Amino acid sequence: MSKSHNPSINPSLIAHSLLPENQETPIHFIKSDIIDPKLFYRRNHFSYPMLTTSSYWLSVNGLVEKPRLFTLQEMLTMPSKTIKVVLECSGDKRYLFVPKAFGDQWQKGAISQGYWKGVPLRTFLDLAGIKAGAKEVVVEGYDYGKRTDSDRVYTFSRSLPLEKALHPDTIIGYEYNNQPIPFKHGYPLRLIVPQWYAMASVKWIKQISIIDSEFKGPFQSTDYVYYPNKENEAGSFPVTTINVNSTIQKPLDMNVLNTGKHFISGISWTGKGVISKVEVSTDGGKSWSEANIITQNKGSYEWSSWVFDWSVMEKGEYTIMSKATDSYGRSQPSIPFWNQKGYGYNAVDKIKVKIE
Amino acid sequence: MSKSHNPSINPSLIAHSLLPENQETPIHFIKSDIIDPKLFYRRNHFSYPMLTTSSYWLSVNGLVEKPRLFTLQEMLTMPSKTIKVVLECSGDKRYLFVPKAFGDQWQKGAISQGYWKGVPLRTFLDLAGIKAGAKEVVVEGYDYGKRTDSDRVYTFSRSLPLEKALHPDTIIGYEYNNQPIPFKHGYPLRLIVPQWYAMASVKWIKQISIIDSEFKGPFQSTDYVYYPNKENEAGSFPVTTINVNSTIQKPLDMNVLNTGKHFISGISWTGKGVISKVEVSTDGGKSWSEANIITQNKGSYEWSSWVFDWSVMEKGEYTIMSKATDSYGRSQPSIPFWNQKGYGYNAVDKIKVKIE
Repeated sequence: MSKSHNPSINPSLIAHSLLPENQETPIHFIKSDIIDPKLFYRRNHFSYPMLTTSSYWLSVNGLVEKPRLFTLQEMLTMPSKTIKVVLECSGDKRYLFVPKAFGDQWQKGAISQGYWKGVPLRTFLDLAGIKAGAKEVVVEGYDYGKRTDSDRVYTFSRSLPLEKALHPDTIIGYEYNNQPIPFKHGYPLRLIVPQWYAMASVKWIKQISIIDSEFKGPFQSTDYVYYPNKENEAGSFPVTTINVNSTIQKPLDMNVLNTGKHFISGISWTGKGVISKVEVSTDGGKSWSEANIITQNKGSYEWSSWVFDWSVMEKGEYTIMSKATDSYGRSQPSIPFWNQKGYGYNAVDKIKVKIE
Repeated sequence: MSKSHNPSINPSLIAHSLLPENQETPIHFIKSDIIDPKLFYRRNHFSYPMLTTSSYWLSVNGLVEKPRLFTLQEMLTMPSKTIKVVLECSGDKRYLFVPKAFGDQWQKGAISQGYWKGVPLRTFLDLAGIKAGAKEVVVEGYDYGKRTDSDRVYTFSRSLPLEKALHPDTIIGYEYNNQPIPFKHGYPLRLIVPQWYAMASVKWIKQISIIDSEFKGPFQSTDYVYYPNKENEAGSFPVTTINVNSTIQKPLDMNVLNTGKHFISGISWTGKGVISKVEVSTDGGKSWSEANIITQNKGSYEWSSWVFDWSVMEKGEYTIMSKATDSYGRSQPSIPFWNQKGYGYNAVDKIKVKIE
């Protein structure tokens, strides 16, 4: 009775649907600030597209001086940049809304982070020559299919206002973590729009079109819109910038722990500025103390990891909360901003534990 | 643009904790009535034990005429039986209790089914010779460790009343689905107790002891006990027989579907008799219709698969429910039986969908 058995134990993605594939990362088990493709959450509207890269080119057209086609080889010769970016699905944490919002019940793991390398979108727009009257840039993916609300076939297409499209950090990515982009995450080219929820970061780019109007595709004007009223569309506005947010990674909700010292740890992120403060409460929000930020996201687009030392000697039930604040003074609210489709959940993160 | 990409898509286990390993099956994606070890939920109280099978023997001792040691080779020569059994963790569906119960927040996938082959426990007890005064049979596993509520080291041990231990279908299993039992599920020997929640089916059996008293180990008298009162232990009683239950596998909770025909499908199971009826409601419980049972569990210990044809033409929100009844007349209750540790959840299964 002596041989050591050490069977491999790995957390895998949590499946919401398989066709299209929608799976999330078990956020509590993320130990690195660079997410491996195996653990990168997968969010699709349609089946995976069919495409070959032997004859692949990037088309830039519409309201331009000269429509252009770029080959992948050409792109590799252009000035590139590498940015560390949080990508978060706007439906992340949807399962927490009360009343529940329809759609996949994403828990806290529709979020990822890694290094994206690519060429600024602006470079391509400048080479094609933006004409006067240009208003938005539409990026279309190769993925397509039917929606439940229509019999038409749509591709996944999204627009950016000209200003965001011209931001030097809005890039056409071709590498993720020093490798070609994994197929499921947009190979060969994916738009990367830092600070916006990830529906803007279109995968499998087919073409880029400059238009003089407001784009009205269903993923722009039906989905990815906040509808704050349950019964009608009054007060609706588009989903764009990532809300300031935090997630407690350890301990787990409803865990039973013993008395003594525990580390409470997690991550915080924002789509505006940087995380300036993370506060933790172990008494259900009555009192708050600052957590220690371990990795500070100085001016970049990454998340901040934090830890909080907790000594607990008294047995009982405890509600632990985390609240992040960013350099624009935005803090996580106590009450979530409810909306019909369940986007942008960012209320104070909350778990319960029992000490025995 | 013609090559077909068909990346492999598989749902994996949902991880609650890794040390000890506790992962569940995404129940909605189970297509077979025989669960592959890769998708078999994993429920552990401690780290995986260290053991070699080159020197393995099964010890039967205590209140017997003659303590015995059995080798694995010897066991293979004894009359065996193969039974198709549902194993369900008593914490399955714990996440549905309101107020929430502490412990791992198992969703609906701490359940499995497959063919177990082994020798009746009774055979070993008869060979050792049960002495007068025998009351319970204690089965001890090789897994051990500390609990949060004590500094002592415990092995995982459970007892059965003599009557259940002598039931001809209570077996010492050595094969699962025609293969040696997977290590994570109890290799080389696992007790299989049909109709009881799976804490009784002790893995990695170390020894079997007959005693003349009530066994009081912590996994018998502290855990796996129903405590119906939040504040004290009044009215407590042990967890044993599986409650009549059902799970809707399709559609998923909070799915958005289109108008037309849909199949509502799922499974039902019970620890007493067989499933005699499954009813489905698509109007939140106002009216019920019988579902078609596809695989009837005639006298065995397996689950019943069922399907219900649903034609829906009117857009809106629908609450779909399933309610199983067994041949002992037990039906799933509307209101769950709340208990401190969150065992045995079996209220009517319920999901919501939106038709658009």
